[in-house]
Amino acid sequence: MPLTGMRKYLNEVIFGTDTPAGKNFDVFLIWAILTSVVLVLLVSVERFGSRYGEMFFILEWIFTGLFTIEYFLRIYCSVNRRAYIFSFYGLVDLLAILPSYLALVFTGAHTLLVIRLLRVLRIFRILKLIHFMRDANLLLRSLWQSRRKIMVFYASMLVLCVIFGAIMYLVEGPRHGFSSIPKSIYWTIVTITTVGFGDITPQTSWGQAIASLTMLIGYSIIAVPTGIVTAELASEIGRERTLRRCDNCSRSGHDVDAEYCKHCGYKLEEEQKLR
Amino acid sequence: MPLTGMRKYLNEVIFGTDTPAGKNFDVFLIWAILTSVVLVLLVSVERFGSRYGEMFFILEWIFTGLFTIEYFLRIYCSVNRRAYIFSFYGLVDLLAILPSYLALVFTGAHTLLVIRLLRVLRIFRILKLIHFMRDANLLLRSLWQSRRKIMVFYASMLVLCVIFGAIMYLVEGPRHGFSSIPKSIYWTIVTITTVGFGDITPQTSWGQAIASLTMLIGYSIIAVPTGIVTAELASEIGRERTLRRCDNCSRSGHDVDAEYCKHCGYKLEEEQKLR
Amino acid sequence: MPLTGMRKYLNEVIFGTDTPAGKNFDVFLIWAILTSVVLVLLVSVERFGSRYGEMFFILEWIFTGLFTIEYFLRIYCSVNRRAYIFSFYGLVDLLAILPSYLALVFTGAHTLLVIRLLRVLRIFRILKLIHFMRDANLLLRSLWQSRRKIMVFYASMLVLCVIFGAIMYLVEGPRHGFSSIPKSIYWTIVTITTVGFGDITPQTSWGQAIASLTMLIGYSIIAVPTGIVTAELASEIGRERTLRRCDNCSRSGHDVDAEYCKHCGYKLEEEQKLR
Amino acid sequence: MPLTGMRKYLNEVIFGTDTPAGKNFDVFLIWAILTSVVLVLLVSVERFGSRYGEMFFILEWIFTGLFTIEYFLRIYCSVNRRAYIFSFYGLVDLLAILPSYLALVFTGAHTLLVIRLLRVLRIFRILKLIHFMRDANLLLRSLWQSRRKIMVFYASMLVLCVIFGAIMYLVEGPRHGFSSIPKSIYWTIVTITTVGFGDITPQTSWGQAIASLTMLIGYSIIAVPTGIVTAELASEIGRERTLRRCDNCSRSGHDVDAEYCKHCGYKLEEEQKLR
Repeated sequence: MPLTGMRKYLNEVIFGTDTPAGKNFDVFLIWAILTSVVLVLLVSVERFGSRYGEMFFILEWIFTGLFTIEYFLRIYCSVNRRAYIFSFYGLVDLLAILPSYLALVFTGAHTLLVIRLLRVLRIFRILKLIHFMRDANLLLRSLWQSRRKIMVFYASMLVLCVIFGAIMYLVEGPRHGFSSIPKSIYWTIVTITTVGFGDITPQTSWGQAIASLTMLIGYSIIAVPTGIVTAELASEIGRERTLRRCDNCSRSGHDVDAEYCKHCGYKLEEEQKLR
Repeated sequence: MPLTGMRKYLNEVIFGTDTPAGKNFDVFLIWAILTSVVLVLLVSVERFGSRYGEMFFILEWIFTGLFTIEYFLRIYCSVNRRAYIFSFYGLVDLLAILPSYLALVFTGAHTLLVIRLLRVLRIFRILKLIHFMRDANLLLRSLWQSRRKIMVFYASMLVLCVIFGAIMYLVEGPRHGFSSIPKSIYWTIVTITTVGFGDITPQTSWGQAIASLTMLIGYSIIAVPTGIVTAELASEIGRERTLRRCDNCSRSGHDVDAEYCKHCGYKLEEEQKLR
Repeated sequence: MPLTGMRKYLNEVIFGTDTPAGKNFDVFLIWAILTSVVLVLLVSVERFGSRYGEMFFILEWIFTGLFTIEYFLRIYCSVNRRAYIFSFYGLVDLLAILPSYLALVFTGAHTLLVIRLLRVLRIFRILKLIHFMRDANLLLRSLWQSRRKIMVFYASMLVLCVIFGAIMYLVEGPRHGFSSIPKSIYWTIVTITTVGFGDITPQTSWGQAIASLTMLIGYSIIAVPTGIVTAELASEIGRERTLRRCDNCSRSGHDVDAEYCKHCGYKLEEEQKLR
Repeated sequence: MPLTGMRKYLNEVIFGTDTPAGKNFDVFLIWAILTSVVLVLLVSVERFGSRYGEMFFILEWIFTGLFTIEYFLRIYCSVNRRAYIFSFYGLVDLLAILPSYLALVFTGAHTLLVIRLLRVLRIFRILKLIHFMRDANLLLRSLWQSRRKIMVFYASMLVLCVIFGAIMYLVEGPRHGFSSIPKSIYWTIVTITTVGFGDITPQTSWGQAIASLTMLIGYSIIAVPTGIVTAELASEIGRERTLRRCDNCSRSGHDVDAEYCKHCGYKLEEEQKLR
């Protein structure tokens, strides 16, 4: 059932990006989201929170009001309402306004603070920007293609971390900060990912020798996900080139950014948007 | 000699993964292993260890009992018993139950703790999960193909670490924490792998200059294993595609995840499982 | 309008690199720039700054004088003056001499120091060295080709950092150094990029668990830009090989460093310099 | 002029690796070098140095004696003596024995210690092991092919580090540990390479913001050398495959580890050793 009248216009403005009004709406929305997120960040800073607390409170409610109206307009004008509400963006849109209302019911200083923070998830809406870009899809598809390889990699890595964590707990012991196996595993993850906070460090010779081994292993393990993603990305780029086909001479193999067929000069179609 | 009766059934359940019973057994086993490992981890935490110590002790023996029964059933129902016992998984299965029994003989608080910890190796059994996945084999083959290149890389890196360690010992000396050459080498490994704990840091200008050089070298050395693995992985993916051949039209070049021949639509065989 | 007489000669010496005089001029310029930058670095060191302050002051003005003369000679002898002044290198040339003159007007010890520091930008001129090398162009083109993918990557990463920062602020709180959300985001960036200073570290079990997750995510995210750049670089190297064409037999596919056509032995032209 | 008699035999044993005697000699040499290096490492450890100092002294002179004899035998039996003495390995062989003799002339506790340490360079001789492996050559050629790209990369990175170092010195200043521009540059290198010692950390909001930027830049810069090496390595592997040619059917494209021609089954020649 195609939309008509007001709903069709609103749909074009809110969901669409082809009309000037639709573009302006999206740009304005992004700015509103960014501003409201920055407000949440600033209010957490002691200096600003105590001085401008009241102003932040008012601004927060203005943004909440705007986003609430926007949310109901989106439901009103979407072609398939149920599909929108339970889509990823529909749920994020709801989550972006809920915390403010929840803060009304569940009063109490501490809990309030916790709920307020959830609004940071609102920033996810900016991701809408991304799905206009083909390149994001290319990245996501590459990651999706390599999902099993990456899972295998993470499983092996976690096994390694648990075993090395247990060995370090045994060698260094609670005297040197390795107070339990879970904490030793935390240290191993910090070390194997080459983060190296330095809050816990091995003190004994054996501990330092095993730590060196852990680091060298981590150093070569870093190569594995990179290799997976690179190989997959290179194959995705190749596949994308093959998929693009000229409507005139039906030859493929065009570059991703080509606008005209390199064999007959015919204007190439924009690629179909994914998802 | 094919198995018959009870042994055949048990073999299908314990070693197989094609029947529902075999699948359920494996899933149950994974959960039991994970639970027992988590118990070992928790008991090492002061808070839990002192309060629930006795309960952990009982649970530990229940798991040890279950795994012991499972181990002997595996020996009983395997086609080639000798081969199973001395296979990688056979040895890991034995190592997963031994520490509990060893703890009975060699009493004494401290030693006991050490032996208990070895049971964490039990987590290796989860690796069985992995060898069902073709992708793990692809990763392992890529690493195996590049074993010599990686060895050359590690050898050069260790030489570098020893030399830089000696130079740092000379420049900074025991006054600034570089108390011996082995410790300086430890510091160099911490630095060259970009872990950087910060427990030992150069204080003199010359020391900081040499440290900067070490880091920059480490930064470009990080590229080498990645390059090796990526090049090997890309070539492995290419080879896998070539190896897969349609039984009907005998043309190759199918994607790794393809289920039907892209030339004649014939159902492609599952690839032979490696090892 | 081609240049004549003095202007032509100066243009060849200052902008050109083909004549011996042009080469010598460039080498001398690089040394002068490096020396003046080293002077700025040394004067900031307490020890040198207080002892040789006056000598540095004089040397600084000598270099400023030389660079000023050079700047006006460049304007005088360039083919298109407007184009030079507003080109990237023209602006950098101006910025390299401005701070010294600005320091005359805006007196005051502190401000002076700040402005002096800006002269370090002078080092940008060394970049001129680079644009003689084809490889720099290859790198820049690869980065330019992957600009959108890298932007998508950074956007996703910043979203991740803000969300994890907020969660860490919630879990650890001001008691453990996570005094505000912006500071928590700073900590998340320090952790996700595997830098790990260790000035702020999670103290609670939940905090350490979330930190571990952050690190593991950072560890696999490190693969994405590498994959992008590698795939793009490999495709750029392939394209460069295709673009090079023998003037005699018009066959392409020559290596980047080939000097003669591999099919007919004809001398290959130097590639056209980019920009 | 071919060698004869004693010199020929010695040459085969010392330089050669094809005869059993030559192999044994090399294996023995590697062990002697490793042992002597370990001795140097151990003597620097307080605990061992004071207790077994005398024994180390004697062992050190035994090794120095052996290596001296070996050095002169190498000169005696080499085909081209001048070429050996001034080759890379000839110089390393000399450097490996010199420090012990120098320690005799220049007495004095401190200087002695310094010279002793130089013997660690002896470990370079182990590199001889490596040049038997084709893979080391593949790696070295890949790095050599990408030398200019890597130089461009390091030049840009150093410029970045100097500029960011100067900005951090300006923003944080000596109060927060950024006591001079060189030290700030050291901090920037520590940060941009993701080492992150944490001995100097930004304290102000602006400093932390700029530090975050530095880290994110470092994080994507890490991709560049990896991309360069990977692309070069992949192309080297491809080239190696093309170069190998069957003597019987003269077809190329064989795998690096192939022993027989895949077209006619003829035994493939060992590849010519490089350098």
